[in-house]
Amino acid sequence: MAEVKPVTAVFPGTFDPFTRGHFSLVMRGIKTFHKVIVAVAGSTSKNTKFSLEERVDMAKRIFEHHPQVEVDSFDGLLVHYVEQSPANVIMRGLRAVSDFEYEFQMALMNRRLDNDIQTVFLMTDYKWMYLSSSIIKDVAVNGGDIKGLVPRQIYDEVIERLVPGK
Amino acid sequence: MAEVKPVTAVFPGTFDPFTRGHFSLVMRGIKTFHKVIVAVAGSTSKNTKFSLEERVDMAKRIFEHHPQVEVDSFDGLLVHYVEQSPANVIMRGLRAVSDFEYEFQMALMNRRLDNDIQTVFLMTDYKWMYLSSSIIKDVAVNGGDIKGLVPRQIYDEVIERLVPGK
Amino acid sequence: MAEVKPVTAVFPGTFDPFTRGHFSLVMRGIKTFHKVIVAVAGSTSKNTKFSLEERVDMAKRIFEHHPQVEVDSFDGLLVHYVEQSPANVIMRGLRAVSDFEYEFQMALMNRRLDNDIQTVFLMTDYKWMYLSSSIIKDVAVNGGDIKGLVPRQIYDEVIERLVPGK
Amino acid sequence: MAEVKPVTAVFPGTFDPFTRGHFSLVMRGIKTFHKVIVAVAGSTSKNTKFSLEERVDMAKRIFEHHPQVEVDSFDGLLVHYVEQSPANVIMRGLRAVSDFEYEFQMALMNRRLDNDIQTVFLMTDYKWMYLSSSIIKDVAVNGGDIKGLVPRQIYDEVIERLVPGK
Amino acid sequence: MAEVKPVTAVFPGTFDPFTRGHFSLVMRGIKTFHKVIVAVAGSTSKNTKFSLEERVDMAKRIFEHHPQVEVDSFDGLLVHYVEQSPANVIMRGLRAVSDFEYEFQMALMNRRLDNDIQTVFLMTDYKWMYLSSSIIKDVAVNGGDIKGLVPRQIYDEVIERLVPGK
Amino acid sequence: MAEVKPVTAVFPGTFDPFTRGHFSLVMRGIKTFHKVIVAVAGSTSKNTKFSLEERVDMAKRIFEHHPQVEVDSFDGLLVHYVEQSPANVIMRGLRAVSDFEYEFQMALMNRRLDNDIQTVFLMTDYKWMYLSSSIIKDVAVNGGDIKGLVPRQIYDEVIERLVPGK
Repeated sequence: MAEVKPVTAVFPGTFDPFTRGHFSLVMRGIKTFHKVIVAVAGSTSKNTKFSLEERVDMAKRIFEHHPQVEVDSFDGLLVHYVEQSPANVIMRGLRAVSDFEYEFQMALMNRRLDNDIQTVFLMTDYKWMYLSSSIIKDVAVNGGDIKGLVPRQIYDEVIERLVPGK
Repeated sequence: MAEVKPVTAVFPGTFDPFTRGHFSLVMRGIKTFHKVIVAVAGSTSKNTKFSLEERVDMAKRIFEHHPQVEVDSFDGLLVHYVEQSPANVIMRGLRAVSDFEYEFQMALMNRRLDNDIQTVFLMTDYKWMYLSSSIIKDVAVNGGDIKGLVPRQIYDEVIERLVPGK
Repeated sequence: MAEVKPVTAVFPGTFDPFTRGHFSLVMRGIKTFHKVIVAVAGSTSKNTKFSLEERVDMAKRIFEHHPQVEVDSFDGLLVHYVEQSPANVIMRGLRAVSDFEYEFQMALMNRRLDNDIQTVFLMTDYKWMYLSSSIIKDVAVNGGDIKGLVPRQIYDEVIERLVPGK
Repeated sequence: MAEVKPVTAVFPGTFDPFTRGHFSLVMRGIKTFHKVIVAVAGSTSKNTKFSLEERVDMAKRIFEHHPQVEVDSFDGLLVHYVEQSPANVIMRGLRAVSDFEYEFQMALMNRRLDNDIQTVFLMTDYKWMYLSSSIIKDVAVNGGDIKGLVPRQIYDEVIERLVPGK
Repeated sequence: MAEVKPVTAVFPGTFDPFTRGHFSLVMRGIKTFHKVIVAVAGSTSKNTKFSLEERVDMAKRIFEHHPQVEVDSFDGLLVHYVEQSPANVIMRGLRAVSDFEYEFQMALMNRRLDNDIQTVFLMTDYKWMYLSSSIIKDVAVNGGDIKGLVPRQIYDEVIERLVPGK
Repeated sequence: MAEVKPVTAVFPGTFDPFTRGHFSLVMRGIKTFHKVIVAVAGSTSKNTKFSLEERVDMAKRIFEHHPQVEVDSFDGLLVHYVEQSPANVIMRGLRAVSDFEYEFQMALMNRRLDNDIQTVFLMTDYKWMYLSSSIIKDVAVNGGDIKGLVPRQIYDEVIERLVPGK
C-alpha cells in the first residue's frame, strides 16, 4: 500500500492570551488531522499584553504532553509561512456570524494568494462560544474572575500581568 | 515510524442534482483529506426530481476517474452512517450566513450524538457561492440556461428530466 | 446634446397582496429612475390568495395617477422578461439580513444569465421594515387590524378575501 | 408604600414537543418576572405531532411544582390573547441570528397592533443554543437518542409518539 | 397575599450623548419593570466627548419627571455593580444583527460571572433603529442637523460641545 | 416628448487605494445611470496611506477614457455634497452582511437628513467579494502579491508607497 502522507494543519492566531476556546479547537484538530502546528503571529496591528516569546512559551507549556501538537511563530503573511511548512491546511475556529464574514474574506484572499492551501473551519465547543482573548482581558482588568477561561498552566501568569499584585 | 492512518471525510447531501459547487468542494476535500466519501441521502423531507439510485449513479460517473473519491448512500441519521464508516470527519460546504446558522445547529446536534465525529467546513469557490441544487432546478424549469452549472457528465440527463423534450 | 435615453427599472414580485412597503419602494424608484414597471409574477411556487388578474388589476388601480409607473405581468424567468422590456435594471427592496442573502443569490444567478442586466437594491422606509405580504395575511386571517398596511385603494377587497363576511 | 403590581409575562409557542431549551427559558423568566404564562398556540400552520390538549397537558406536568408558572392555550392573534390576560409582556427566546430577524419582524408587527405590549427577549442557555422542537423530532424519527433534550416528565410519551414501539 | 417584590432593571451604557433611541428604550423599560436604573459607565475604552459627571447630569435632567427612573454611575464590571444594586436584571437594546452578536457574547460572559443576573433585550422603536451616539456625533461634527435625535433637554449643550460656536 | 433629465449617481468612498472591486461597481453604475461621480472623501477618521490629492489623481487616471465618469472630492457630510451636485442618488456597493448593516444605518441617517436623496445598492462582481482597500494594504505590506487587485494604471505607485523599494 502506497505510504500515507500525514495531514498537518496550521492553527494561526495572536493568542494574547491562549484561551480554553483555543485549546478545545486544537483538541478537535488533532482528532481530525495527524498534526496541528499552533503558529503564534509575531507582527500584529493589535498591541498585545504579552510579548511574542511569552505567547510562544505559554503555548508550548500548554501542549507539552501532546505529541501531535507543535508550537511555532511567524511574521508576515500566513500563506507564506504555510508554504514553507509541512502543512497545506489552515485551521480556523468559527464562533458566530461576525467571525464567519471576516474569516470568509481572509480565506478567499489566502486562496487567491495560493489556491493549493485549503482553509478549513472547525466549531468551538458551545461552552466557549462567547469566549475571546479580548473579552477575557476586559473582564480580568475590571476585577472579574477568569478562572477556567484560560488553561490552568498559564492562569497565574495571566492574572499577574492583567491585574498586577492581585 | 508508526503507520499513518489515512484521514477519511464523509461529504453528505441530497445532490438533487449534483452541482459544480458540490464538485469544487469535493476537489478541495481530496486536497485536504486522503479520501472523501460522497454520501447521498436516501431519506429526505424534500421531494426530489431524481431517485436515490439515479443520484448515486450520477455521482459515480462524475468521480469515475478520482480514486480518492467514493460514492455511497445512506438512510436515517448521518451520525449513525459515519460511525460505521472508516471516516470520523463530516465535511460540509459554507456559502453564506444562512448556511452557517443551519450548519451550526446540525453540527452541534451531531456533536451531542457523537462527540468523536468532527464537523469540518470548507468554503466553495466564490464562482459557485450563489449556486444550489434548488436554484438550478428553478432556472432550468423556467427555460434558463444551466450549462456549466452542473458537471458536464450529467448535463443532458438533468436537462431531459427538468425540461422534457428540450 | 446627444438625446438622453430614459432609465427604466423592473420591480418584480408576487404582490399577494400589494403592501405599503411595496408602494414606498415604487415611490422611491420613480425618484431614482424615469419609469418603473411593476411586473407581477404569474408562475410562483407559492399558492396565492389572489389570482394573477386580480393582482395586476389591484396594482393598476394603485398607480392609476402615477404616469411614471406601468403595471405588467410575466411568466417564466425574470431575466427573459426584462430582456424583451425597455428596462435593463431590476429593482429590489431590502429589509433585513435574511432578505439580503436570498436577494444576493438571485442577483448573482440573474447576472450569470445576463451580465448586462443590473440588479439594484433600494431600502424600504423604516416604517415598513417588518412588513411582508405573508405577515399581513397571517394577521388578517387571525382577526388582526391591517388598516394602513395595504394601500387604501385595495383595503376592502383584501379584507373581504382574507376574512370573508367581516 | 403603593401596592406593587406583579409583572406577568406570556411565553407563547407551539411546543411540539416542549424542549429543555424552552424549560431553561421559563426558569430564567421566573427569575425576571413574578409570573410566566406558558401559552400553547392552538392554530398553527405547522402540522403538529401532538394535539393541543396533549401539548397543554405535557406543559402542565412539567411545571406542576412551579407556582410562578401557569399553562394556558390560545387561538388566533397572540396580541389579542395577551390583551385579555394579566400580562403586558411577551417573552421570547433568542438562539441565533435567524431567530433574531423573524422575532424582530413579529415584535414590530405586535407593537403596531398594540403599542402597550412589550416584547422582551431572553437568551437560552448556551447548552441548548442548537436545540429546537423540529431538530429533536428529526433526530428521534431517524433513531437518534434524544434523552436529556426534552424534560424527563415527557420523555417516554415523546419517544412513544415519534418512534412507535421503540 | 405575599408582598410582591418590585422588579428593577439596570440599563447600562456610555450615553455619550444620550439619544432618543436610549430614551425610547427606557420608556419601554418602565412599562415592563417597576424601576429602571440608568447606569452611566465611568471606565470605558472609548474617549468620550462628555465627562462622566456631564453624562450623569444630562441623564438626570432627562428623567427628572419620571419617578420610575433612577440615574447612577459605575466603574469596573457591570455584573459587580448589579450585584450590589436592588436589581437582578440587565436591560439592553437590540437594533440589528451586529448588535445581537456583541450583546450575545457580553450576556453569556455576564451569565458566567453571575448566573442569577438575567440579561433581557428590548427592541428600540423602528424610528430609532439606525441611531447611535457615534453616528449622531459624526453627523453633528460635519455640520448635519441632529435636532430631534437627542432629547430636547440636552440638545443645546450637545450642539455647543460638538460644534462650538454654532 | 418632454426632455429626459439624465440620472446622475454619486459613488462616495475613501478609495485608499482604489480597487478592482470599486472599478467593477463604477462599470455597473454607468450601465445603470447616465453619469457616475466618483466622490473621494477628504475628511475621514481613518489615517490614509495616500493624500486626498493623490487619491483624486489616481481615480482620474483610471477613468480617463470613460466620459460617463467624473471624479471629484468632498469634505463634511456626504448628503450636503450631493445636495449641491447634479445627482439625487447615492450609489453604494454591497459585499456581505456586515456591509449591509453599516450601509443600512448610514442610508437611514442620510434619508433623515434629506428624504429626496435615494441610496441605491449594487453588488460587486463575486470575483471581488472578499476585496477591500484595507485587506489589499495588509497583504502588500506583508509582502503578498496584489497584482490584479488594483487597476493596472495605479499598480506601480501603490506598490511603491506600501512596500518602498520593492
